Amino acid sequence: MKIFDDKMAPNPRRVRIFLAEKGIAVPYEQVAIMKGEHKTPAHRARNALEQLPVLELDDGSHIAESVAICRYFEELQPDPPLLGRTPKEKATIEMWQRQVEFNLYMPVAQTFRHTHPAMGALETQIKEWGELNRERATKAVHWLDAGLAGKDFITGPHFSIADITAMCAIDFGRIWRFAIPDSCANVKRWHQSVAARPSAQA
Amino acid sequence: MKIFDDKMAPNPRRVRIFLAEKGIAVPYEQVAIMKGEHKTPAHRARNALEQLPVLELDDGSHIAESVAICRYFEELQPDPPLLGRTPKEKATIEMWQRQVEFNLYMPVAQTFRHTHPAMGALETQIKEWGELNRERATKAVHWLDAGLAGKDFITGPHFSIADITAMCAIDFGRIWRFAIPDSCANVKRWHQSVAARPSAQA
Repeated sequence: MKIFDDKMAPNPRRVRIFLAEKGIAVPYEQVAIMKGEHKTPAHRARNALEQLPVLELDDGSHIAESVAICRYFEELQPDPPLLGRTPKEKATIEMWQRQVEFNLYMPVAQTFRHTHPAMGALETQIKEWGELNRERATKAVHWLDAGLAGKDFITGPHFSIADITAMCAIDFGRIWRFAIPDSCANVKRWHQSVAARPSAQA
Repeated sequence: MKIFDDKMAPNPRRVRIFLAEKGIAVPYEQVAIMKGEHKTPAHRARNALEQLPVLELDDGSHIAESVAICRYFEELQPDPPLLGRTPKEKATIEMWQRQVEFNLYMPVAQTFRHTHPAMGALETQIKEWGELNRERATKAVHWLDAGLAGKDFITGPHFSIADITAMCAIDFGRIWRFAIPDSCANVKRWHQSVAARPSAQA
């Protein structure tokens, strides 16, 4: 078993943090997106969509998509639970994971892709779409701030995959100088707490 | 327990099909997006992001996000399994669900939002982004066609949530005259099969 990883990209980081929280060690092999290594026939055979990370199982099959890879390890080793235990917990965590992904993570990524000079050669950039997403990302942090009121973590008293997705989104946003607004005190407090966990360095 | 639904929107349909496949009956209450009913204080209290569907539990709490609602019912009643049984099945189905959602469903929805006259009053339309997504949706159907080669359903021999997401995407695309290209024979065959299931009428 191994994971095809890119230390520079935000999606692989989600899986590395998840596994660090679980205390699971998996060998990583680097595939450098900025060098175009994800577009080689070898990587396309693992994931026709040319994305990272990809988990390779011992039977030679491949699981792509960060959250699907996390699901695999959660099912193999439920403790500590990062996707919930009861039906209600599982559904609530999946709700937050998706809401954070669609409303914060994706706008942060779209702003990078559509406005950052480094992406000009890799992406059909539509500046107006990038700027709309810059606004959406800021709006989403305010939404998250309301959601974190009176809570240690996004889904309640326990750290979950939703916290991983949100932290990776905010940290990735630094590439286009995104910063948590001073008015979002709950997000600031929460980010200090999750960034101080050893897993954040994974 | 009840589900806030909109018979006209594609996301609520995903949940209705899922529950029909499970044979689970839940009362529905209509919230008409085209009449702006999702923006009322009553609905915002259920989901601050103003989206549908939303599941209301008997304790008064709310679960938003179609896939999270499906997860809740899968956990309550695993049979027939639509999210997988073993760790590998669950991860593989989640991979396909996400890939179909990001590469097909979202481009179909973005094309509608950014090019359709009916959405002009509700959305900041960026035509160039809409047209890029029109191309992406077509490209995604070809990708799906390759993925369906030699398989009855997207994730293998069994119907799963990935089939629901893909069918809802393709059917929703009709609103901007999206059609499965003749060259995508696997998708045509698969669509005929899934559209003929009684759940497709839910």
